[in-house]
Amino acid sequence: MAKEFLNALEAEIGQQDMGKNPIELYEPIQYLMSLGGKRIRPVLCLLTYSLFKDQWQKAISPSLSLEIFHNFTLMHDDIMDKAPLRRGKQTVHEKWNDNIAILSGDVMLVNAYQYLNKIKDLSLSEFQFALERFNKTAAEVCEGQQMDMNFESRSQVSVEEYIEMIRLKTSVLIGLSMELGAILAQQANQVSDQLYQIGELIGLGFQLKDDLLDVYGDPEKFGKQPGGDILANKKTYLLIRALEMAEGENKIELSKWLSMANPNPELKVKSVTAIYTSLGVKEETEALVKKYFDEAFVQMSALNIMDEKKVGLLKFMSGLVDREV
Amino acid sequence: MAKEFLNALEAEIGQQDMGKNPIELYEPIQYLMSLGGKRIRPVLCLLTYSLFKDQWQKAISPSLSLEIFHNFTLMHDDIMDKAPLRRGKQTVHEKWNDNIAILSGDVMLVNAYQYLNKIKDLSLSEFQFALERFNKTAAEVCEGQQMDMNFESRSQVSVEEYIEMIRLKTSVLIGLSMELGAILAQQANQVSDQLYQIGELIGLGFQLKDDLLDVYGDPEKFGKQPGGDILANKKTYLLIRALEMAEGENKIELSKWLSMANPNPELKVKSVTAIYTSLGVKEETEALVKKYFDEAFVQMSALNIMDEKKVGLLKFMSGLVDREV
Repeated sequence: MAKEFLNALEAEIGQQDMGKNPIELYEPIQYLMSLGGKRIRPVLCLLTYSLFKDQWQKAISPSLSLEIFHNFTLMHDDIMDKAPLRRGKQTVHEKWNDNIAILSGDVMLVNAYQYLNKIKDLSLSEFQFALERFNKTAAEVCEGQQMDMNFESRSQVSVEEYIEMIRLKTSVLIGLSMELGAILAQQANQVSDQLYQIGELIGLGFQLKDDLLDVYGDPEKFGKQPGGDILANKKTYLLIRALEMAEGENKIELSKWLSMANPNPELKVKSVTAIYTSLGVKEETEALVKKYFDEAFVQMSALNIMDEKKVGLLKFMSGLVDREV
Repeated sequence: MAKEFLNALEAEIGQQDMGKNPIELYEPIQYLMSLGGKRIRPVLCLLTYSLFKDQWQKAISPSLSLEIFHNFTLMHDDIMDKAPLRRGKQTVHEKWNDNIAILSGDVMLVNAYQYLNKIKDLSLSEFQFALERFNKTAAEVCEGQQMDMNFESRSQVSVEEYIEMIRLKTSVLIGLSMELGAILAQQANQVSDQLYQIGELIGLGFQLKDDLLDVYGDPEKFGKQPGGDILANKKTYLLIRALEMAEGENKIELSKWLSMANPNPELKVKSVTAIYTSLGVKEETEALVKKYFDEAFVQMSALNIMDEKKVGLLKFMSGLVDREV
């Protein structure tokens, strides 16, 4: 089911034609969209829509607004984070320049609204509700990115603050993806809100799994060397918890690696990973990922929908828990 | 009439509350919006709405989407142009930094859609048409900015290309401002399109007048020293025409000033202005401004609306022709 949706989405992305000239503006959009990615957001939207209605083809174009918006945030975040690579390829600001990445990203955000405007068959109030939720979520994602940047210059970040940051930066859009599926299927606000909550939980589990994979991922499967977050001293859940728990030798060693000016990269990744492991941070993070997904599964089973309708979505969710990529 | 609208708009802008946290994201929005400006776009929207309906208060919030969008473009353009000042004050990226100006601008673009979503009392298709026109125009404004940046690195730009650039960068949004007024007043597409055409003509005249004021404006009234465009070698209509027409001594002199590494600023402005004047570029630009506004007035008189209804808009248009600020 998800595979069928993915094929339809890729076909639609391939046809995406937002404009031609000036080429500097539109080429980066096509470039970034064609780098792939899991298309989790539109797939979740279509899977949720399919809980209620069969004609999922109708939801394809509106669901792409989520993917385009997500890629817009990547284009702009990569400028702010001075990231050289995205999905193993040059980032837009590296391949072109900062100005092009700013402006091309702006057009992409507008494109997201163009796809959202392909919604048909809703009432005005249903459509305006979809737009309101999209707007609110879009602003929240920016808030999450600003929080993330603010954390960089702070010496201490609490677990609570970190969870709130990833909720805004990542989870609310995954929540919206499922909510939009329900709105497109003309479900009552109460139902679409339940799906938003489930998506938010999935989003939290998804991001924490990302933090884990960046340290413990299998480079063969993950497609990149683990340790990027460690090398960047990124305040992930793992580092925040390690800083809270480390004592004695571990504490001294961790501080040393965090403050070292030009560390040997492999040695730093290996040493910090060993500290995480010895402190039990790996198991703790895995348990937290499981907790969020478990709660999402519980809320799924509480949904008043026939079980056979839920199979596709549940299977996709399980894939996210177990993913190694 | 325009004064009454302006007061109502300023009151609404003063109440604008898009969010609070993180403060880095929302303070720049409030800062830029409070720097003033003529609010030409929402005023034109309200004046156009008033051609057809009396309850202009209903159009206040949607009309602000135009002003917020315009200010969003200023925030991002100022990063790209490395501009230190906007309306005599520090630009956002100067007062804060580039990353904040990128992200705060992104939220502002979302805010524009939030205000557009305050439209009430339209049918779904009327609302989606408004959104479609907004999206198209927003993308075109970005295209205009990209063209403008591309012109910087080119040795030659034709008048035709320049007019197309300012049409996209400036005029289409002024066109949309009037079109949106007509859409909000539930006029047929044919009528709203006529208003768009008029706004586009006004926008072209408005930008060329800007080019003129930047060279020939009275510093006392204009609020800044003229000559900014000349010092930046900006390819305005005046420079493009001067490059086309200059011969002999004028041509040598103009090339000299354009290629000089560290010119005396006052001397450069004075000399290039003298070349413009001797070539008749001032009168030619004034004539072109007049031509666009005259055409806008002709199209206004062709509108099938009682003359007394047109008074406010016509008066405002005359103010734009004669403006010294």
